[in-house]
Amino acid sequence: MSDLTVERVRSAFEALGSGDRDRMLEFWDENVRFEIPGNHVQSGWHEGLDAFLGFLGTVGELSGGSYKAENLTITVNPEDGYSVDVNTNWALRAGAPEDSTSPYHLLDVTAMHLLRWENGRIMEGRGVILGDGPSTSALWWSPIGPDGRRAA
Amino acid sequence: MSDLTVERVRSAFEALGSGDRDRMLEFWDENVRFEIPGNHVQSGWHEGLDAFLGFLGTVGELSGGSYKAENLTITVNPEDGYSVDVNTNWALRAGAPEDSTSPYHLLDVTAMHLLRWENGRIMEGRGVILGDGPSTSALWWSPIGPDGRRAA
Amino acid sequence: MSDLTVERVRSAFEALGSGDRDRMLEFWDENVRFEIPGNHVQSGWHEGLDAFLGFLGTVGELSGGSYKAENLTITVNPEDGYSVDVNTNWALRAGAPEDSTSPYHLLDVTAMHLLRWENGRIMEGRGVILGDGPSTSALWWSPIGPDGRRAA
Amino acid sequence: MSDLTVERVRSAFEALGSGDRDRMLEFWDENVRFEIPGNHVQSGWHEGLDAFLGFLGTVGELSGGSYKAENLTITVNPEDGYSVDVNTNWALRAGAPEDSTSPYHLLDVTAMHLLRWENGRIMEGRGVILGDGPSTSALWWSPIGPDGRRAA
Repeated sequence: MSDLTVERVRSAFEALGSGDRDRMLEFWDENVRFEIPGNHVQSGWHEGLDAFLGFLGTVGELSGGSYKAENLTITVNPEDGYSVDVNTNWALRAGAPEDSTSPYHLLDVTAMHLLRWENGRIMEGRGVILGDGPSTSALWWSPIGPDGRRAA
Repeated sequence: MSDLTVERVRSAFEALGSGDRDRMLEFWDENVRFEIPGNHVQSGWHEGLDAFLGFLGTVGELSGGSYKAENLTITVNPEDGYSVDVNTNWALRAGAPEDSTSPYHLLDVTAMHLLRWENGRIMEGRGVILGDGPSTSALWWSPIGPDGRRAA
Repeated sequence: MSDLTVERVRSAFEALGSGDRDRMLEFWDENVRFEIPGNHVQSGWHEGLDAFLGFLGTVGELSGGSYKAENLTITVNPEDGYSVDVNTNWALRAGAPEDSTSPYHLLDVTAMHLLRWENGRIMEGRGVILGDGPSTSALWWSPIGPDGRRAA
Repeated sequence: MSDLTVERVRSAFEALGSGDRDRMLEFWDENVRFEIPGNHVQSGWHEGLDAFLGFLGTVGELSGGSYKAENLTITVNPEDGYSVDVNTNWALRAGAPEDSTSPYHLLDVTAMHLLRWENGRIMEGRGVILGDGPSTSALWWSPIGPDGRRAA
């Protein structure tokens, strides 16, 4: 798999963000499965590109469009067919006070994706969060705010 | 509030299980709010008797009807208008192997309800789980099984 | 056990705070076991009054003496020999900024103790935290601050 | 940094396991800092090679020497100076029944290390666990067993 490069990983995520399904399918297999870490409502394996896109749509809704990711680095192993991209993730829950630092409102973590490639396409991805981010992000994903009230 | 007795608390839960709404309303205020602990999909304050009954229905569905509770003791303070009932809770997720001991399948905890009474009726309840039950029960409530697959 | 009253529970905690061991032993059995909830470094059963007092000393050290508890209510069942006391707990980790609201620094929860009495003395106690307090208090008990640095 | 290869990452971990400090120092900076994820007693940044080796010794003790890791793949970015190695980790707590599957006894996860290299040496490492491994491994690291008893 001579074509698994840092640049190709970057292009895969650009395609994902483009909304252009044909372009996505140059990088992401139709049957790609993607694991969201943790045990919250969105955790576990999302099976197929559509399910994964559905998950990304949910992130957009829950964050009121505030979700931002910034890439730090991308590592690859073309022979084994694996890449890892490292990113900072930032998102404020929709409706939360803009200056809130409560982990029920604010997601501010560093995360990675481990991607397995076959024939130039991503077959499987696994998200993972660094440090104690799995704990704090569980609060962000929960249906409750700092006062225990459930989101409407 | 001279009528807050161990027996009355017991009757309140019997009414809840009876399916008879008029009987429930002798003990549970129409606007009762009930807090499910943790940060899983059902956590937080369920507002109103209907929302609380909806939660109980969800427990029944997720456990395929296997949910069992057994009371250990009931403590009361009639002057302050509080009671606490202590119960063992047991439930197997619907579809799980019957002999599974994985915490993603099996809930086996001791839990309590703190109830606040006014004029002979429950206005507020807060569930709580003993020991490390909050951790293991988070796995039970999650959408995933031990292999990370999401429930259908 | 006709003498298990709200007042006696209150006196048991006053004795505990008095530092007077003889007075403690009027309420707390020498072999009392006490469960700290969760899975952090202090979690699990502390066996014997000395181990329990050791735990309370650790809370004092970690909080730089800032730990405060305020009782909300006490419920009892004299026949079964159980009491439950409900309290707010507040503590700032030693060395944390005084105005920090990070759960790694600030403990601000409502908690309960389920106590089992025999012959007028407490044989067993189980602490428990309401709402999502088990999650946030795990951060407080951890060796790390919000930046992942370990306490010296 | 033309010398950051998959082979060099592999050699760095072999050196770590060799017990030969001079050999380690060919790959690991004396002041390397290494983050153990989560909020358990060993979580957070271990500062310096000695602290990191101390952590590895603790893993050996807690697991009664049963800890095993198997590498799945290694990805690199020589220009940015980053590598990621992906490994399965398996460990049984010392004293646990050999066939126990309780997460309080058995660690069975897939984990990664994100390593930052400078001038051919590792300056910083961050461990991270995939899937819901952060939840289950918190139980493994806890002082308690499935019955809530604290390890002696």
